[in-house]
Amino acid sequence: MTCAVLCIGGELTRGERDNVNATWIASGLTDLGFEVVEESVVDDDRQRIVDAIERLGRTARVVIATGGLGCTGHDVTAEAVARALSVRLVRHEPSIERIRRRMEKLGRAMSELHARQADFPEGAEVLANPIGTAPGFALRVGGATAFFMPGVPVEMQRMFDEHVAPRIRTLAPSDSYQIRLRSFGLPESTVGERLAGAEGEFPGVTIRHRADPPEIEVKVLARAGSQTAARALCERATADVRRRLNDVVYGEVGDTYAGAVGRALRAKGYTFAIAESCTGGLVGTMITSEPGAGDFLLLDAVTYANSAKTRLLGVSEDALRGHGAVSAEVTAAMAEGVRHVSGADIALALTGYAGPRDGGASKPVGTVFIAVAGPEADVEVKEYYFPGDRLQIQTLAAYAGLHRVRELCRAK
Amino acid sequence: MTCAVLCIGGELTRGERDNVNATWIASGLTDLGFEVVEESVVDDDRQRIVDAIERLGRTARVVIATGGLGCTGHDVTAEAVARALSVRLVRHEPSIERIRRRMEKLGRAMSELHARQADFPEGAEVLANPIGTAPGFALRVGGATAFFMPGVPVEMQRMFDEHVAPRIRTLAPSDSYQIRLRSFGLPESTVGERLAGAEGEFPGVTIRHRADPPEIEVKVLARAGSQTAARALCERATADVRRRLNDVVYGEVGDTYAGAVGRALRAKGYTFAIAESCTGGLVGTMITSEPGAGDFLLLDAVTYANSAKTRLLGVSEDALRGHGAVSAEVTAAMAEGVRHVSGADIALALTGYAGPRDGGASKPVGTVFIAVAGPEADVEVKEYYFPGDRLQIQTLAAYAGLHRVRELCRAK
Repeated sequence: MTCAVLCIGGELTRGERDNVNATWIASGLTDLGFEVVEESVVDDDRQRIVDAIERLGRTARVVIATGGLGCTGHDVTAEAVARALSVRLVRHEPSIERIRRRMEKLGRAMSELHARQADFPEGAEVLANPIGTAPGFALRVGGATAFFMPGVPVEMQRMFDEHVAPRIRTLAPSDSYQIRLRSFGLPESTVGERLAGAEGEFPGVTIRHRADPPEIEVKVLARAGSQTAARALCERATADVRRRLNDVVYGEVGDTYAGAVGRALRAKGYTFAIAESCTGGLVGTMITSEPGAGDFLLLDAVTYANSAKTRLLGVSEDALRGHGAVSAEVTAAMAEGVRHVSGADIALALTGYAGPRDGGASKPVGTVFIAVAGPEADVEVKEYYFPGDRLQIQTLAAYAGLHRVRELCRAK
Repeated sequence: MTCAVLCIGGELTRGERDNVNATWIASGLTDLGFEVVEESVVDDDRQRIVDAIERLGRTARVVIATGGLGCTGHDVTAEAVARALSVRLVRHEPSIERIRRRMEKLGRAMSELHARQADFPEGAEVLANPIGTAPGFALRVGGATAFFMPGVPVEMQRMFDEHVAPRIRTLAPSDSYQIRLRSFGLPESTVGERLAGAEGEFPGVTIRHRADPPEIEVKVLARAGSQTAARALCERATADVRRRLNDVVYGEVGDTYAGAVGRALRAKGYTFAIAESCTGGLVGTMITSEPGAGDFLLLDAVTYANSAKTRLLGVSEDALRGHGAVSAEVTAAMAEGVRHVSGADIALALTGYAGPRDGGASKPVGTVFIAVAGPEADVEVKEYYFPGDRLQIQTLAAYAGLHRVRELCRAK
């Protein structure tokens, strides 16, 4: 069963924003078991919309279209569809009422431009918009069932889930089930090598990986005659993928690496403190982006200035003078200092050169020291080199620090 | 002069990644003065590629295509183009040599799959790939000049700039110049109202704004007979836009709001310290994502636990017990404490409920206190309410805090 996606809007053809709707819809259709054979984007030009609708109505069985249903003069999708089908536009009274009530709630009167959003090609089925003003509609175009929705992503997504998916699900040639795994710790090429051959062992399963630096996402998509069979197949293939990648898989889509580290700390009952310098608070931001970080995180001291390292963490001025702020000695002292001042069980400290400043030939931009102080163990410092620009170096350093903490939690 | 963009790849029609190439190319063509009338995406299916090429060759004068030029079995673009034009594929010896040398550098032998990347439709002009293996090519298709490039964004972008733009620039009907302004501090609807009518005063100028929450970007695009005239026109229109938006415009594209705050601190010669709680280090991360933050930032104390607020910042246990950690009193004490312990001129402190925990009926999720301690002035605390999920609340709070610091720097 072939599908096509049509996105309408000059902001897309002018390249003013990424076409996230096309990605979202194509992914949704693929998950439902359809094959998307074309995505097309045209601007708000009546004739070009007409041409695209007529063409896609010939080549696809399902067409999902977005955009051009709002209340500005640019919004001409309904008009173009009517022209393509040689029918007239008809005003839909129940929609008029909904639009009027919605405008009243916003304290505004309904204008003729607002009312035009209730004009639909004759014969169309109107699709209510549960969270926005402009309704959508569905109708036959050539050999296809076509759905038209507003281009606002959240509205489109709600309408796709509530109106479109239930209407087309039975048309899909197979049921499918998908699991998306998140991993950190292996380069993309190694992930590719380890996954080579996995698809062959599970007919009906597609395994794809893509870099979302520094993480790698692995998508396992199974197709089978029923949803139950697809799910069982997907779970068997996913177990194999996890075996192949070993423990670099930390969770599924929606999880974060910092969340996995938080779970590891919570499981051990450890409290945690951080002392940052070159990462500027990034480790703390990652940890606290997950709810419940207050259960274990006591303190993140971003001691950017040497004076702060001394005053807050008790790093000696001798160490700073003798070894420099970016050194194994100072980083270890920061970890010990922040563990002491916070009273935490585990402490992490990071210093480094994220650029543009460096530490001379022996400490180029990208040099980072990371120290971990465990609940009993001594402080352990390692030196790293991370390539890239400032943000890349900070991100890689933050991940490496979190990785060390996770390892410490899993050690015993 | 009409242009079309064609992107080839199953990872796009399956919705596995956003089509960033389409956005980048459409934006580049628009900047060069072209009108993009269609973007099309097809998977790696020979016949569908043939259909798309033939169709776009009829409707556009310039076609920019990406994808399907690599060395996997899925890469069939060159073959499909040859089929569409009824010509044969011809191996390009200079490209073979380049591919061989490149593989040698990577320590690998050139296989037949690698060599296939040097097969081009007869009559094509080969376009060297300065940073990757697969070359591109250009040729006439119907009424259009068509360019085919690999889908790897960095390679495609280099090749567009080096090979495509110079060849098509003279075809553009006008020259254009663009300025993108970054703003923070006004809601999108107000920006829209203030900009209403601006386009009318500058014929040839397009003014668009789009939300990049919580910031708003305003794009001023001018077209005129020459590059010089377009630039002069754009600069006049931009000056008008800045007047209309007053001081919420903080810079141009590439600038960040934290960078603007950093410039304001540096201009005054102020040193700066932060005490964060609900924002978990986000303010510090934003400030230190800009190089040179070490010139003014002394410390960011992310005192997540009450014990850390007491131990590090000297917040009294009475205040914490009496008013709660999320209160005007404690936030003020944190600002004073971090100013004192760091010795900074200016201090910012934030506490709040980012969720899921709240502070009861009077302090729902979204309640945030922000205190600023100036170089002479007393501490000033304000209470805010920010809607949204955890990350949105943290982001809005961080921006509001930075805004307060910027205002303080600009006060006298």
